[in-house]
Amino acid sequence: MLAISQRGLAMPASPIRKLVPFAEAAKKRGTKVYHLNIGQPDIETPKAILDAVRHSEFKVLEYSHSAGNESYRQKLVQYYHSVGIEVTSQQIIVTTGGSEAIQFGFMACLDAGDEVIIPEPFYANYNGFAIAAGVKVVPVTSKIENGFALPPISDFEAKITPKTKAIVICNPNNPTGYLYSKEEMHQLKALIIKHNLYLFSDEAYREFCYGGEQVSAMHLKDAEQHVIMMDTISKRYSACGGRIGALVTKNQAVLDAVMKFAQARLSPPSFAQIAGEAAIDLPADYFDTTKAEYLLRRDVLVKRLNAMEGVFCPNPGGAFYAIAQLPIDDADKFCQWLLEDFSYQGETVMLAPATGFYGTAGLGKKEVRLAYVLNLHDINKAMDCLAAAIKVYPGRASV
Amino acid sequence: MLAISQRGLAMPASPIRKLVPFAEAAKKRGTKVYHLNIGQPDIETPKAILDAVRHSEFKVLEYSHSAGNESYRQKLVQYYHSVGIEVTSQQIIVTTGGSEAIQFGFMACLDAGDEVIIPEPFYANYNGFAIAAGVKVVPVTSKIENGFALPPISDFEAKITPKTKAIVICNPNNPTGYLYSKEEMHQLKALIIKHNLYLFSDEAYREFCYGGEQVSAMHLKDAEQHVIMMDTISKRYSACGGRIGALVTKNQAVLDAVMKFAQARLSPPSFAQIAGEAAIDLPADYFDTTKAEYLLRRDVLVKRLNAMEGVFCPNPGGAFYAIAQLPIDDADKFCQWLLEDFSYQGETVMLAPATGFYGTAGLGKKEVRLAYVLNLHDINKAMDCLAAAIKVYPGRASV
Repeated sequence: MLAISQRGLAMPASPIRKLVPFAEAAKKRGTKVYHLNIGQPDIETPKAILDAVRHSEFKVLEYSHSAGNESYRQKLVQYYHSVGIEVTSQQIIVTTGGSEAIQFGFMACLDAGDEVIIPEPFYANYNGFAIAAGVKVVPVTSKIENGFALPPISDFEAKITPKTKAIVICNPNNPTGYLYSKEEMHQLKALIIKHNLYLFSDEAYREFCYGGEQVSAMHLKDAEQHVIMMDTISKRYSACGGRIGALVTKNQAVLDAVMKFAQARLSPPSFAQIAGEAAIDLPADYFDTTKAEYLLRRDVLVKRLNAMEGVFCPNPGGAFYAIAQLPIDDADKFCQWLLEDFSYQGETVMLAPATGFYGTAGLGKKEVRLAYVLNLHDINKAMDCLAAAIKVYPGRASV
Repeated sequence: MLAISQRGLAMPASPIRKLVPFAEAAKKRGTKVYHLNIGQPDIETPKAILDAVRHSEFKVLEYSHSAGNESYRQKLVQYYHSVGIEVTSQQIIVTTGGSEAIQFGFMACLDAGDEVIIPEPFYANYNGFAIAAGVKVVPVTSKIENGFALPPISDFEAKITPKTKAIVICNPNNPTGYLYSKEEMHQLKALIIKHNLYLFSDEAYREFCYGGEQVSAMHLKDAEQHVIMMDTISKRYSACGGRIGALVTKNQAVLDAVMKFAQARLSPPSFAQIAGEAAIDLPADYFDTTKAEYLLRRDVLVKRLNAMEGVFCPNPGGAFYAIAQLPIDDADKFCQWLLEDFSYQGETVMLAPATGFYGTAGLGKKEVRLAYVLNLHDINKAMDCLAAAIKVYPGRASV
């Protein structure tokens, strides 16, 4: 018998995608499914950036530079300047989605057996990338009661061992929608400097903040050598399929090491780099419009959720996710039941059980993540389904 | 001091790309550089497949399925059938270039400390992907004297230990151009069955065989559970920048494990999947034309090389690479000298030192790899440069 590797066995199946077969079965039965389970926005990709690809003229679809086209990196320098991040094109390595930026950062900075501390609930794929790299994820729990604010620094310090090499944050946060305050970012800064740790900062949702400005990890003075930012065009321009991201840092040794991993895989995708480059020239009001749309959706979603008996949903400050606590026994069972056994006026809703976002077993069993990536009409319809479902769910339980 | 990981330090810089700064400096001095150093063909990408992307109509650049669009995988089933490989769309996982197929295969099947045996010289990035996975590459030396044929099976067996999990081949071979015979493929089959090993088979250059048919590892009966094929559209359609490849296997456990890694990185690039899908409908004579062009180039390149005093270049049976032995002291020095200190009629040639393709230190010091990816005129000009260079190179040595 040929064996699968230990890491292959340990890799988690996607908690977001594992319910897909049940959703497909529901659709086959004729049930309409509202997808609030995945961060695939319905917002149209700006036509200008798709047209840049459509109108591109070249004869050979060549490899780009392993760090990405210089012309694109120059444009990114402009973009980062516009959000208060001063970097050179040499401090940007274009990656295949934000995913590859995370992988490169982990591979270049962490060895098998090293530990990274991540506030939970966290983006589930951090765990996958950690397993691929042989790295142990050590969770520090953030709580729904205070809207998933940064856990007390003493909680982080209690988890630090000689093997701890980094803290990972996502800001604004997926899956909680929490936007870290300036004070919290400075607490993190003091922590990484005191304990000589890297800070991996995933800033995929930078533009989507409602009621406060994002403080980038790249804004933290005197922490430049510690900070490695992971970025992507996927959410910013509703361009998830492009698979273009970036790793950005001022740490030259990290850049040098990451570059070797980048060379091994040759180059990031060429077509979507054209789109990414064109995106920097979008009109200044592009994000205003998009953000206003997400804000409307958030307000409706959160209001509808909190109007349901036994439901609590803190108001997220950014990104396009919310986590709600429901009066249910088990979120995994509930989300499957929504697809398998429930419908309301021929419709149902697909949610992500929050259990998949916690590193600590047993947490999140009453919580679900909702991505407000559908239009208002559909969000309201989805909330109608959820409200009806909670009333009749056989596993209803007090919170 | 924040540390770089051991694997980050151990990652090799690209042996192909490390001479780039010297080439850039030569160009700045006004010297024309013929690039025979890298497998970036000058053959135009078929217009039909670029047009498929240019004419694509969609509003949102969405994530595709983690295994690639079902429509593309269905087309790939047709394509593989046309080359005698019978698989279902469920046995194909579309990857971000052949590079990611190699990574996924290593990650899913190999653990840190495991060993893979690879005939050397080999595609240098296998080593990078192995280091990223914590896997040890054990080389078995193929020899220029017999055109880099498969080393004797006893050489493989001498290297097998309890940690050996796989053999890796590239067929036709990069960097040697060697095309494994049916007999050699059957020897490999007996070996992997006898010792219960995986066979990773990189078949990026399948269509480019001159004087013989490729025997795919997927053709080997009774070895289906052992074989994992890595593939890419990069060379086949001169579409290197698309970053679309595939991992193909009939081993369900491997598919299941690879799928978890595929889900973690969400999806392969969407634009180039459109190109890849359109490629399957190219006219049947597409490869005839392309192959005829490469054959002409090979014949001229090999003839010119062997006409130079002290130079020996075996005639490669496939791909678009050749390795030549030169009357020089050190290929790394020579290739750098070509760029730094030499020009002939205002021109020079960039080659890849073969040392970077050997796992055994000290081998390949008199050898260079040449990629015949330029048109005949340029290949002849490049050979003029090389012939002149060998005559005046200060480190000239007998072979």
